[in-house]
Amino acid sequence: MSRQLHLNAFLMSTGHHEASWRLPESDPFANTSVAHYQALAQLAERGKFDSIFFADSPVLFGNVGRRPAGSLEPTVLLTAIAAVTSRIGLIATASTTYNDPFNLARRFASVDHVSGGRAGWNVVTTAGPEAARNFNLADQPAHAERYDRAAEFLEVAYKLWDSWQDDAAIADKTSGIWAVDERVVPIDHVGRHFQVRGPLNLPRSPQGHPLIVQAGSSEDGKGLAARYAEAVFTAQQTLEDAQDFYRDLKARTAAVGRDPETIKILPGIVPVIGSTVEEAQGLERQLDELIRPEYARLQLAKTLRVSPEDLPFDQQLPADLPDEDEIEGAKSRYTLIVTLARRENLTVRELIGRLGGGRGHRTFTGTPEQVADAIQHWFEAGAADGFNVMPPVLPSGLTTFVDEVIPILQARGLFRTDYTGTTLREHYGLARPLNSLVRRAFRPPGRPA
Amino acid sequence: MSRQLHLNAFLMSTGHHEASWRLPESDPFANTSVAHYQALAQLAERGKFDSIFFADSPVLFGNVGRRPAGSLEPTVLLTAIAAVTSRIGLIATASTTYNDPFNLARRFASVDHVSGGRAGWNVVTTAGPEAARNFNLADQPAHAERYDRAAEFLEVAYKLWDSWQDDAAIADKTSGIWAVDERVVPIDHVGRHFQVRGPLNLPRSPQGHPLIVQAGSSEDGKGLAARYAEAVFTAQQTLEDAQDFYRDLKARTAAVGRDPETIKILPGIVPVIGSTVEEAQGLERQLDELIRPEYARLQLAKTLRVSPEDLPFDQQLPADLPDEDEIEGAKSRYTLIVTLARRENLTVRELIGRLGGGRGHRTFTGTPEQVADAIQHWFEAGAADGFNVMPPVLPSGLTTFVDEVIPILQARGLFRTDYTGTTLREHYGLARPLNSLVRRAFRPPGRPA
Repeated sequence: MSRQLHLNAFLMSTGHHEASWRLPESDPFANTSVAHYQALAQLAERGKFDSIFFADSPVLFGNVGRRPAGSLEPTVLLTAIAAVTSRIGLIATASTTYNDPFNLARRFASVDHVSGGRAGWNVVTTAGPEAARNFNLADQPAHAERYDRAAEFLEVAYKLWDSWQDDAAIADKTSGIWAVDERVVPIDHVGRHFQVRGPLNLPRSPQGHPLIVQAGSSEDGKGLAARYAEAVFTAQQTLEDAQDFYRDLKARTAAVGRDPETIKILPGIVPVIGSTVEEAQGLERQLDELIRPEYARLQLAKTLRVSPEDLPFDQQLPADLPDEDEIEGAKSRYTLIVTLARRENLTVRELIGRLGGGRGHRTFTGTPEQVADAIQHWFEAGAADGFNVMPPVLPSGLTTFVDEVIPILQARGLFRTDYTGTTLREHYGLARPLNSLVRRAFRPPGRPA
Repeated sequence: MSRQLHLNAFLMSTGHHEASWRLPESDPFANTSVAHYQALAQLAERGKFDSIFFADSPVLFGNVGRRPAGSLEPTVLLTAIAAVTSRIGLIATASTTYNDPFNLARRFASVDHVSGGRAGWNVVTTAGPEAARNFNLADQPAHAERYDRAAEFLEVAYKLWDSWQDDAAIADKTSGIWAVDERVVPIDHVGRHFQVRGPLNLPRSPQGHPLIVQAGSSEDGKGLAARYAEAVFTAQQTLEDAQDFYRDLKARTAAVGRDPETIKILPGIVPVIGSTVEEAQGLERQLDELIRPEYARLQLAKTLRVSPEDLPFDQQLPADLPDEDEIEGAKSRYTLIVTLARRENLTVRELIGRLGGGRGHRTFTGTPEQVADAIQHWFEAGAADGFNVMPPVLPSGLTTFVDEVIPILQARGLFRTDYTGTTLREHYGLARPLNSLVRRAFRPPGRPA
C-alpha cells in the first residue's frame, strides 16, 4: 500500500468562515449544541477521518456581535461525542499556562478511558493578556516562559500517565489484593514550575498517553513540537512555505533523536467546494460579502498591535509594524498575516477577505476533483503528511468533503476505505508508548526482597 | 400531593462496601468502565432518582491493594452518561482548593449545556496533605482558609455564570449581529484569592447555575452550606443526630436570609437488602468477612492521626485521641467515627466492620419493606428531605432498590412515579436562579446613550 494521507476535521460552530453563521442554512446556536457536534463527528467518522479537533482558549475572544461566541469546554464536548462514535479520534485543545498538570493529565486519561483509546491533546500555551486576566494575572507570562512551562508540564504529565504499570491491577478476589503496590509509584517531580508527588489517581489509559498535538509555528513552538508532538497542525499559505516548514520540523525532530516518521505534519486547508469552479467561487463570494468589515478590522488591528484607524480599508498595511520578536502573543500567526499581505500587496479589505475564510489558513476554492488534486500535490511534494480540513460552512462543507472528495482520495489509493485500528494512535500509525517510569521488579506481597 | 422524597444514587465502582469487588458477581475493573456507569445511571433513571453523584479527590487515596483504586474524572464521566440518559441529574464533585474558578465554572456550565440542564456540583475543599502535594504545595491550606477560598470561589463562579444575560445572543442574520455587546459583561472580580476579569467564554447554561451541593458537616462546612448549598449530603448514624443536624442547618439557612425550603438535606443510607431479614444479614456478613482488616486498620489509623500499632484489633479506641479542633482534615468524618466507636463501645475490629459498609454512613440491613419504613421514618420525623442512597454492591444493590424499594415508596405516595421536569433543579423543586449580575439596560447598537 502506498503512503497514506491523514485527515483531521477541525470543527468549529457553523464553519471556519466567519460569516458562515449568516447563511440561511446555518444554526446560529450551533456553538453550544452538542447534537450539532455529535452529528458532525458521526459524519467525519463515516468519512473515515483520523480525528476531529476543537481549538480552545480560556477567554472570550473578540467581539460577541461579530459571530457566534463562546464554546463548550472541549474535553466535555469530546466525551459527549465519544458516547455516539466508536472509531474516530478526539483531539481537544488545552492550555499548559492556565491548567495544573495533575488535573489535566487525569482529565485526558479519563477521556482516553471513556473513548477506548481515542483521546488527543493539542498542547497550547495560550497567547494574549486577556486570558491571563481570568487567572489572577495582570499580563501573560513571556513567550519563552510559557514554552518552558509547557515542556515541564508535558514531562509531569508523562510521568503521571506512567505512574501505573499497565499490569498494576491484578484483581485477585481470592487473596483480596486488587493491585500490586510496587506497580503504582509516586513520581516525586520537583522542577522549576511544578512540584507534583503523584501517582495519578487513575490506572494507565488504553493509549498509554493521549496523542500529543502541537499547533504553534514560532521558533519556540517548533522546538516544543520536535520534542513532544506526534501530530502538528500548521497554517501554510504556499507550497514553498509548507515544504520549508515540513523539512525544517522533520529535521528538528530527527535532531532530538526521534524518528521523523513519528511526527505527522498537517497543514490547514479551507476547502470551498462547488460542483463547478463557478459554483465554488460563488459560494466564496457569498460568504465574503457577509463579512462585516468593521468587526474584522478590529480583530486585525488587535493582532497587529495597531489601532483600527491605522488600517484604512483601501490601503495596504502600514510599513512600520513591529517585528515578530516584539510580539509576546501568537508569534507565528502574526508573521503569517503580515507576510501574506506584503507578498500579495493586499489592501486591508482584501486581507480581511482572505483571513475571513480561515484566519490565515490556506483557502482552496474548486471542484471536488481540484480539491483532491491540491491535497495530493502537497502530500506528494513533501509538504504534508495529511491535512487539517477546515470546512468554511458546517455541516454542508463537511458533508461535501466526505461524499465527494474522500471517495476520490480513496480511489487514488491515498486514503483508507475503512479503519484498520481502534485507537487514535493506530489511525496515525503511531505506537503505544512504553511505560517510561515504572520499571521496578515485581515481588509478590510478603515475599522478602 | 404530599411532601415528596428526593433520592440521589451515590455511585462508586462495585459498591460502597469496601469488599464488594471480591464478590463473584462483581467486575473488579468497574472503576474505569464507562459502560458500567452508563448502565447504572440508566437503572437509576428507570427508578426516577433525582440524580446520581460521584465523589472525588485529586489524589490517589489509600492503598491500591485494598480495593479498586483510581477513578474517571467526574465531569468527564457524567458527560458520557449524559449522552445515554435524558432526565436524571448528574452531580460531580470538584475541589475549590485545587481548581481555578474560570476553568471549573466553564466546565460545569458546559456539562449543563450538554446535558440539557442536568448538572450539579458538589463543592468540596479537599482534606489532607496528600492532595496538596500534587499541586505544588507541601501541605494543605488550613481548614478555615480552604473554606474562605471556597466561598470566594463560588462568588466568582456565580458571576461568571451570570456574565451573559439569557437573551444576549440574538443571532440576527440580516444585520449580521450575533449578540448584543451590552448583554455580555466582564465581571472584574478582585478579591482575597482571585482576580478574574471575565466574562465567561460560554453563554448562560440551561439551569443558569448548576445545582450547588455540599457535603461537609464541620462548622465551616455548615456555614458554607447555609449560604450556598441547594442540596446537602451528610453522614448521620442516629435519628437524633440527623434531626439535630437538619434543624441546625435549616435554621442557619434561614438566618442568612434564605428560604429553608431551598436547601434539601439528604443523609446517606447504605441499604443492605434481602428478601428476608436473614438473607440481608447473610449478605452483610458475607461482605464483612471479605474485608482485609490490616488494610482497613491502616486507613482508620490515618484518619485518627495515630499509628496502626495503637489500634489493637480487640481493644477499643485509645482514650487520648486529638480534639476535632486539632484536625485540619475532614473534621466531621473524624468526629463521627470517634463518636460512633465511643457510643457503642466498639472494638477496633467492630468499628472496622461498621465503617467498611459505608465509611461512616448509616448502614440499614433488612427487607425492602423495612428499608422503605426506615426511609419514611426519618423523612417524616424531621431528619431528612430525602436520602443519598449508597448501595453496598453495584449493580445488584441498586437493581434491588429500584425494583423493590422504590415501588413501595411510590405506592405510599412519597416518591414520584415519573419525572415532571427536565432539569435537575426541577427534580429538586428549586427555581432557576435569576441573573444577578447583568442588569444593564439594552440599547440597540449605534443608538446614542
